[in-house]
Amino acid sequence: MPQNTPSEKLEGVLAHVDSQLDASLDRLFELIRIPSISTDPAHSSDCIKAAEWLTDELLDLGFEASVRPTGGHPMVVAHDKAADGVHVLFYGHYDVQPVDPLALWETPPFEPRIKTNADGKKQIVARGSSDDKGQLLTFVEACRAWKAVTGALPIKVSSLFEGEEEAGSKSLGPFLDAAAAELKADVALVCDTDMWDEQTPAITTMLRGLVGEEIEITCANQDLHSGMFGNAARNPLQVLSEIVASLRTPDGGVAVAGFYDGVSEVPDSVKAQWAKLNFNAAEFLGGVGLSIPAGEEGRSVLEQTWARPTCEINGMSGGYTGEGFKTVIPAKASAKISFRLVAGQDPAKIREAFRAHVRARIPADCSVKFTEHGGSPAIALPPDSPLLRKALAALTTEWQKDATLMGSGGSIPVVGEFTRRLGMDSLLIGFAQIDDRIHSPNEKYDLESFHKGIRSWVRILAAFAE
Amino acid sequence: MPQNTPSEKLEGVLAHVDSQLDASLDRLFELIRIPSISTDPAHSSDCIKAAEWLTDELLDLGFEASVRPTGGHPMVVAHDKAADGVHVLFYGHYDVQPVDPLALWETPPFEPRIKTNADGKKQIVARGSSDDKGQLLTFVEACRAWKAVTGALPIKVSSLFEGEEEAGSKSLGPFLDAAAAELKADVALVCDTDMWDEQTPAITTMLRGLVGEEIEITCANQDLHSGMFGNAARNPLQVLSEIVASLRTPDGGVAVAGFYDGVSEVPDSVKAQWAKLNFNAAEFLGGVGLSIPAGEEGRSVLEQTWARPTCEINGMSGGYTGEGFKTVIPAKASAKISFRLVAGQDPAKIREAFRAHVRARIPADCSVKFTEHGGSPAIALPPDSPLLRKALAALTTEWQKDATLMGSGGSIPVVGEFTRRLGMDSLLIGFAQIDDRIHSPNEKYDLESFHKGIRSWVRILAAFAE
Repeated sequence: MPQNTPSEKLEGVLAHVDSQLDASLDRLFELIRIPSISTDPAHSSDCIKAAEWLTDELLDLGFEASVRPTGGHPMVVAHDKAADGVHVLFYGHYDVQPVDPLALWETPPFEPRIKTNADGKKQIVARGSSDDKGQLLTFVEACRAWKAVTGALPIKVSSLFEGEEEAGSKSLGPFLDAAAAELKADVALVCDTDMWDEQTPAITTMLRGLVGEEIEITCANQDLHSGMFGNAARNPLQVLSEIVASLRTPDGGVAVAGFYDGVSEVPDSVKAQWAKLNFNAAEFLGGVGLSIPAGEEGRSVLEQTWARPTCEINGMSGGYTGEGFKTVIPAKASAKISFRLVAGQDPAKIREAFRAHVRARIPADCSVKFTEHGGSPAIALPPDSPLLRKALAALTTEWQKDATLMGSGGSIPVVGEFTRRLGMDSLLIGFAQIDDRIHSPNEKYDLESFHKGIRSWVRILAAFAE
Repeated sequence: MPQNTPSEKLEGVLAHVDSQLDASLDRLFELIRIPSISTDPAHSSDCIKAAEWLTDELLDLGFEASVRPTGGHPMVVAHDKAADGVHVLFYGHYDVQPVDPLALWETPPFEPRIKTNADGKKQIVARGSSDDKGQLLTFVEACRAWKAVTGALPIKVSSLFEGEEEAGSKSLGPFLDAAAAELKADVALVCDTDMWDEQTPAITTMLRGLVGEEIEITCANQDLHSGMFGNAARNPLQVLSEIVASLRTPDGGVAVAGFYDGVSEVPDSVKAQWAKLNFNAAEFLGGVGLSIPAGEEGRSVLEQTWARPTCEINGMSGGYTGEGFKTVIPAKASAKISFRLVAGQDPAKIREAFRAHVRARIPADCSVKFTEHGGSPAIALPPDSPLLRKALAALTTEWQKDATLMGSGGSIPVVGEFTRRLGMDSLLIGFAQIDDRIHSPNEKYDLESFHKGIRSWVRILAAFAE
């Protein structure tokens, strides 16, 4: 069939996506089977394997692609600039979160499977199925379809795949600085976000920032018997608990001095837009077994998660935590604590304010060690660029429902880095659902997210070529 | 050499102890090599092995001995009632504490070795070297020496060895009830306590009680991503920390309502006796790297650890605690918490008061699960019985230093059980040192404790026969 008009070409590419979905899934399963957990040194070689797998795929598609070493896990960079016009840099990450608690997985996390729900809906279940292997492959498979059907991409495409997104993105900044000229494009496309709901596609324009900290408190120089020393010896779990308790105010705010400096109230116009989304807070919390918003009193759940900063305890450990009981006073106790930031908050200042808060609460004969785990400011992207409007239209056509702009409580540090280091805005377009259990056991990605995600990118590439 | 007088007999037995010390040590090492960790179901068969080992040794010595099954780990019971006069029941426990954190052990915990310090002092290093395998074998080896030299024991001896002392002694009460007639003796001898210092032998007459509790708090029904849910979703680590922080008052007391009901002040006469011990609080805390007593303000370290109740956090865990960072809001968080009790406090009432304290602080959409880990009241033993005076004199002769009476911050539930179920008092005589690191990595038992401990029991058995 001769493909003459752009519209005919597009239909041909979309039809190819539909007919090749099983092959696309096979490739996703291959990538998922590589357990590329970036925070765990035991999986370093798996991160390299995932980078090499992606590079081979892109080379196959005719990209000029290579694995680029960094101080940490490597980057994958690829270019196909044969087309005229707009140049996009697509970003994704091939690393995944750890899988513990492993016991809660229904099937092994790195053995992907298709699960069919009672309502017939199919889901891809595995670590990384959504975050971010499933999402990033939607774009790669869209490029594959364009190449297969028309022999070329409709616009200039570069790709950057990172392997440290779940580990603080330590190598990203230096890498972007060194490769700035090579990577700078008209816009970055970042596929690491959610849709508004199962029917409604969305582009995210507000993202919270992040400060990650680990603290380790040492009291005695050895574990002690609580019978012999209990009462007289300082217990680091008690000290740590008192510090953690002190981080929150009774009304759900964060008690670190200066924490809210520079934080603005959400404008009424934006609140009005959010109201139209018909967000159901009871359903949002009810879906995970909760019913009472835990954040600042008087603020909606949407405001709490999109537009208000917070402090979360991500992990705590100390003493005996195995089976049974041990009457020990441990020498050490530790916690992993993160702050989600909004526009106006400086990550470095928040980190220092937190550390001062902790230090002021350490008894004179105890000590504290801080470890930094990444930091990035919040992001607010321009909500009205021409490419954004084209992407919204393409999404609306594909999903047959008005695409929406939204905020996100999560952090995507690369967006800030693109702005700061490359002077480049990002379009955050993703097909994940809020119930994907990313970072949790039994992570899933709807088969429809994967399929229509590929089709969405096919349309967006076409729209950008117009 | 004919042994005519009691004194000549005693000297002969003591000389035998000295000449056979290496063989005694070999037997201790054999027992230590059995990793009888009672709290860990993976080591159940090792507990049985340790019980069988002890039974075989006692049969070898001519005791009528057997392994007695219980609902948990078995008991070992042995009798040799050939002699006239006093009948003692010796109690020890063959189970040991878990060994984590394993990385802090200089050598494997169940491979015993003799370590020679710079000052020439020798120590037996291994899990259980002091608590309680080393201690209990001092008595068995004393019996062995009496049998070897004189062919008989000077008094009636029964033995009871338990395998659940470090796991809440769940089977002990029912077992004592069932075997009351068989086990009742004139006095129990319990070898699970310290000397006052390296030179000064001691008999312990005050022991704190214990209530062990585990709480698990559940908020969401799954682990959540802190970007997506952070601020709106209740964080169980935050809830748990606030509860733990609320357990203590700012002046170092315990904040649970009614906790101090029934607790008496230490009489001035007892405080005066303690003052004579020249206890050096700075040295006691300094030895473990601390300097500030953490308990109730205005009370001495000795009072805090011997005569005041306390609450200790023995373990806490929740969320991501591995390498690196994970921005998770966990579904669950848990803590192991124990209370050390003094005379006048009822373990059941304390447990209920604690649970009420916790329940009152659980948000309405979260839940808490309690698990009981043992409970025993505090003990105050009569400080002036004839057998106590004989034991003090025997200890004074062996160590060439006045033996003292003291209190202990630890709990030895069996003592309360002997009082309550068998109507039998206990003499608590042990040779451990405060720096033995029981329950901690690199546990040790001074070779002198082992050697002179055996000699001490040889003398005490002789004294009881007079």
